[in-house]
Amino acid sequence: MLENKLVREDETLDDLQLKEICVIQKKSGFRFGVDAVLLANFAKVKKKDCIVDLCSGTGIIPFIIAGKNEIDHITGIEIQSDMVEMSNRSVLYNNLQDKINFIHGDLKNEELLKAIEKVDVVTVNPPYKLQNSGIINENNKNAIARHEICCTLDDVIKASSILLKDNGKLFMIHRPERIADVLCTMRKYKIEPKLIRMVQPNINKVPNLLLIEGQKNGGKFLKWQNTLYVYDENGKYTEEINMIYGKMEDSHD
Amino acid sequence: MLENKLVREDETLDDLQLKEICVIQKKSGFRFGVDAVLLANFAKVKKKDCIVDLCSGTGIIPFIIAGKNEIDHITGIEIQSDMVEMSNRSVLYNNLQDKINFIHGDLKNEELLKAIEKVDVVTVNPPYKLQNSGIINENNKNAIARHEICCTLDDVIKASSILLKDNGKLFMIHRPERIADVLCTMRKYKIEPKLIRMVQPNINKVPNLLLIEGQKNGGKFLKWQNTLYVYDENGKYTEEINMIYGKMEDSHD
Repeated sequence: MLENKLVREDETLDDLQLKEICVIQKKSGFRFGVDAVLLANFAKVKKKDCIVDLCSGTGIIPFIIAGKNEIDHITGIEIQSDMVEMSNRSVLYNNLQDKINFIHGDLKNEELLKAIEKVDVVTVNPPYKLQNSGIINENNKNAIARHEICCTLDDVIKASSILLKDNGKLFMIHRPERIADVLCTMRKYKIEPKLIRMVQPNINKVPNLLLIEGQKNGGKFLKWQNTLYVYDENGKYTEEINMIYGKMEDSHD
Repeated sequence: MLENKLVREDETLDDLQLKEICVIQKKSGFRFGVDAVLLANFAKVKKKDCIVDLCSGTGIIPFIIAGKNEIDHITGIEIQSDMVEMSNRSVLYNNLQDKINFIHGDLKNEELLKAIEKVDVVTVNPPYKLQNSGIINENNKNAIARHEICCTLDDVIKASSILLKDNGKLFMIHRPERIADVLCTMRKYKIEPKLIRMVQPNINKVPNLLLIEGQKNGGKFLKWQNTLYVYDENGKYTEEINMIYGKMEDSHD
């Protein structure tokens, strides 16, 4: 069985319920969360778009985008070589070699970025926390995914700006408390903020995620979308969250 | 009667329902709105604080703040001389000459600003719209209050920075679509964003107001407050909005 060859003992094969796509993840270690799913659904991708996903981890965002859109190609860039090796096994498992590939690289490596043909869209679910916030183990894979150990927000947005075509779009998810850093750094690298959507756990809770769209060399015109609430007053997923996950099920062949 | 001498035929005297304070407004012309009330309630003012209110218009914000807090003094600065003359009549009407005064001045006049002793707090409900947005009459008082005709956001934040003591606080209300301009300009003038609160007409509508607190030379640490909804699902004021207005009634002697 192909599955036996591609999925190891310390890994799980998780069905995205989207065109039968499955993603390999470590049983213990960094596993994708709701934020990756929200970002993949927030990203507006046009037919035949070329895309780069930065900090791609398990590869979840490229797999959802490829499942939902008729893209040309997505390249995922990830600094942890074992994650790249694993996400490329997910590509093989799903037989998506013509649509998705993952490369091992550091987004601070400008030569690497400049060697890639300019893309229509960059997606990124970067580490949210400042390096100096809390006690962290720099060898810990979770820490690398969550803290700015290997790259800062500045590095991420600079890399996106290098990768994007003129008028190309950046779609990012981040923490609301970093909004000033996000907006000021986007402008620093000529990516104009165009759309913001806040995510709240429910109507009474403080926003805990920020979805943002920027445009390379775009004009100044920012819109806000209505707030996305994850849970309703009964602690159940809201209709919209069910639709985001449900849409994935509806796409099942 | 004092009222007869101070309030003119084309004006109304509006009871703030807060320590019997009343504010004179033109019957036709710019009248204060819910945004001024929200900002005055958002502003955290400590006992004996010295405050400047920029773009003070009718003076509504200084009157609410003086009604709610044991301040030392508030100076309102306004560019339209007839508004200054009117708001100073409100001061006399309320017998608040020792607490509030309004001066006629241009916040772009750095000499004027530098002549004022540094303050603990600046409040401002500035014009929201870019000068080039829509057809506007530059002599229209409503237009001056709503469009960046006499001052830009950059002017407003620069003036606030000149006025504030080290670690002094800026409290501003603005439109969410200007958030990138607001945050980047605050940082440009060394006012670090510290607290953001979004205001939505109701839970389903897009945010339409942004309340923000910044600190002169403050450290980088931004918090978000829970979203403020103005109307509930039945189209009635929410409990919190009633409390904001109700608090004012409760303060009645």
